[in-house]
Amino acid sequence: MRIVSADTGGALLDENYNPIGLIATAAVLVERPYKTAKLSIAKYSDPFKYDLSGRMALKDETFLALKLAKKVKPDVIHLDSTLGGIEIRKLDDPTIDALRISDRGKAIWHELSKDLQPLAKRFWEETGIEILAIGKESVAVRIAEIYAGIYSVKWGIEYAMKEGFVRIGLPRYMTIEINKEKILGKSLDSREGDLYGEISMEGKEFEWEIYPNPIARTFMVFEAKS
Amino acid sequence: MRIVSADTGGALLDENYNPIGLIATAAVLVERPYKTAKLSIAKYSDPFKYDLSGRMALKDETFLALKLAKKVKPDVIHLDSTLGGIEIRKLDDPTIDALRISDRGKAIWHELSKDLQPLAKRFWEETGIEILAIGKESVAVRIAEIYAGIYSVKWGIEYAMKEGFVRIGLPRYMTIEINKEKILGKSLDSREGDLYGEISMEGKEFEWEIYPNPIARTFMVFEAKS
Amino acid sequence: MRIVSADTGGALLDENYNPIGLIATAAVLVERPYKTAKLSIAKYSDPFKYDLSGRMALKDETFLALKLAKKVKPDVIHLDSTLGGIEIRKLDDPTIDALRISDRGKAIWHELSKDLQPLAKRFWEETGIEILAIGKESVAVRIAEIYAGIYSVKWGIEYAMKEGFVRIGLPRYMTIEINKEKILGKSLDSREGDLYGEISMEGKEFEWEIYPNPIARTFMVFEAKS
Repeated sequence: MRIVSADTGGALLDENYNPIGLIATAAVLVERPYKTAKLSIAKYSDPFKYDLSGRMALKDETFLALKLAKKVKPDVIHLDSTLGGIEIRKLDDPTIDALRISDRGKAIWHELSKDLQPLAKRFWEETGIEILAIGKESVAVRIAEIYAGIYSVKWGIEYAMKEGFVRIGLPRYMTIEINKEKILGKSLDSREGDLYGEISMEGKEFEWEIYPNPIARTFMVFEAKS
Repeated sequence: MRIVSADTGGALLDENYNPIGLIATAAVLVERPYKTAKLSIAKYSDPFKYDLSGRMALKDETFLALKLAKKVKPDVIHLDSTLGGIEIRKLDDPTIDALRISDRGKAIWHELSKDLQPLAKRFWEETGIEILAIGKESVAVRIAEIYAGIYSVKWGIEYAMKEGFVRIGLPRYMTIEINKEKILGKSLDSREGDLYGEISMEGKEFEWEIYPNPIARTFMVFEAKS
Repeated sequence: MRIVSADTGGALLDENYNPIGLIATAAVLVERPYKTAKLSIAKYSDPFKYDLSGRMALKDETFLALKLAKKVKPDVIHLDSTLGGIEIRKLDDPTIDALRISDRGKAIWHELSKDLQPLAKRFWEETGIEILAIGKESVAVRIAEIYAGIYSVKWGIEYAMKEGFVRIGLPRYMTIEINKEKILGKSLDSREGDLYGEISMEGKEFEWEIYPNPIARTFMVFEAKS
C-alpha cells in the first residue's frame, strides 16, 4: 500500500514555552515497511502570524497532500482527522451530523467540508484515489507529523543563523539528532515500532540542544544558536 | 501469587490490513516475577469462519483458563474484561446493572453471565479459586495476550508452509523474533517492564518480516512465506 | 525556568499487592534541561495510618513545596492537580464551579481551596511566585513523582533492616536501581525523554528485587530483605 499523508507541527515557543505559532506542514509518501517516508515535501507558515485558534492546518495539509499525490499517484491519502477512516468525498451535512464526534467537531467539519468535500470528490473521480479521515490510527499520519517536526527544525536552524537563537516545540514524543548534513527525527514512543524520518541540510555552524518541555510532558524542545 | 489468565488475539489480515478473523486463544500460568508464563496452552480458531462481531472470545478464554487451572491449581484466574476485578461468580443481574460501564457493556454481560456466572460459582465452590474480571490492569492478562500473538504466529507459519503466504496482525504493541526453533514475543510498551513470552517450534524453511500496520498505529504485522 | 514541584507516592503493599498506605511526599527543584532535580526534600507518612480515601496528599505536597520554595526562590510552583495550569490563588468558589472537571473534583476543590487559596494568595503577595494546578502536563510534577518513589525505597530499605522485609509499589512506570550508595529512579515511559532522579544512601547489606506488579500493569514492585 502506497500512502500519502500530511500533518502540521513544530511550534515556535516563547521564553515561557508557550506556542507563538506553527511552523511547517509536511506531506509524505509512505510505502512498505511503513517506518519512514520515501519522499517528503514541506510548506512553511509564518509562525509570527499563525492563527492558533483556527482550523487552517487541515486545509493546508489537504492541499499539500494533493500536491504530492498528483506526482506520486498513491493508493490512498490519509488526513490527520480521526473520523474512523471515512472518505472525505462522502462528508455531506447529514453524514457529519451522524458522526460520533463532539458538537464542536461537527461544527468544524460542517465548515471544512464545504471546501474539502468537493475537492475530494473531484480528485477521486479523476484518479480513483480516496482521501480518508483516519487520523491517529494511521502510521503515515504519524510519519508526516515526525517530518513536520524535522522541517520545523530545518526552518529553525535557518532562523537561528539570521536571528541568533530559536526555540521550537517538537510534535509529541519525538526527538531530533543532527549528524553532519542530516536532520534525523525519531519517535520516542516505543510502541510505534521505530518510526523515523530524515532530510538533508547544508552544513552550518551552530550549537543545538534538545530537552523535555517542562510544561508539556512527553514533548521535547529544540534550541539552536549561531 | 500464581495466576492463570487467558486472552485471544492475532488476526489474519487481508491485503488492505483489515482483519478476517482471530486466530488463537492462549491460557498462561504466570508466577513471580510476573514477566512471562511458566506454562501456556492454546486453542486455535478458524479465522475464515470467525464472527468478529460476536462475544465468543471471552467464553473461549474462560474455558481455556479453567482447563489450565484444573491442572495447575493457581491462586486466582484473571479474565480480560475490565470490570475492576469483580468476581465472576457474583455477577448476577442487579450487580451487572450497578457496574459503572456502558449500557452496551451491561447488555453483553447480562448475556455472558448466564453461562459464566454459574460456571465460576461452581468452580469456586469446588476449588476456592476466584475468577476475576480484571482486564487491562492485570499483567497476567497482558502476558496471555502476548502468548496469543506468539501462537498466532506459530499457526501462521504452518499456514504459510501449506498455502505459501500469511499476513497476521499481532496484538497491540508487541513484536516477534524467530530464532532457530523458538518464537519469541516481546511487549513494545517500555512502561510494562519487559514482558515477553516464548514457545518452541519445529525447524522450518521460510522467510518472515515484521513491520508496523499502516492503518493501526502501535500494532505490528507479521508476514511469512514458504 | 526554575520550578518547584511536589508529589506523593510509593505505597506499602500487602501480600496481595493491595496498598496499605502511601509512604513519601517529595518536593523538588527542577531547572533546565528538566530531566532530574537539582535539589530534593522529603516528608514521610506512616503508611500504616494513611487514609487512602482522603485528600491529604495535595495539602502535604503544597506545604512541602512551599518549604522548598522559600529556600530556593523558584519562578513558579507546580502542583499535581490537573486543572489546566490555573493559579491556586484564583480558585474561589465561582471559578471552581466553572472548571471543566467532574462534580466530585469540584467538591474536593471547594473543600481544599479553603486552606490552599489564601495560602497561595499570601505567598504570591509576598514573593510574586505563582502556585499552579498543572498536574500531569508538568515534567516537574513527574520528576517529583519519581523522587517520591526513590524516597519510598529509601524508607523501605530502612524498614527492611529493622523488620526483615518490605514490599513497595512504586509510582507509575518507573523503576529503581541501587548502586553502591545511591538509589537511582528512572522513568520507564520512553516518551518522557529520560527523566530520572537519584539520592544517596548509607551503605547497608540487603537483598532487593524489582518486578511488575501483577495486578497493576505498568507499575513496578520493589522488595528488600535484610
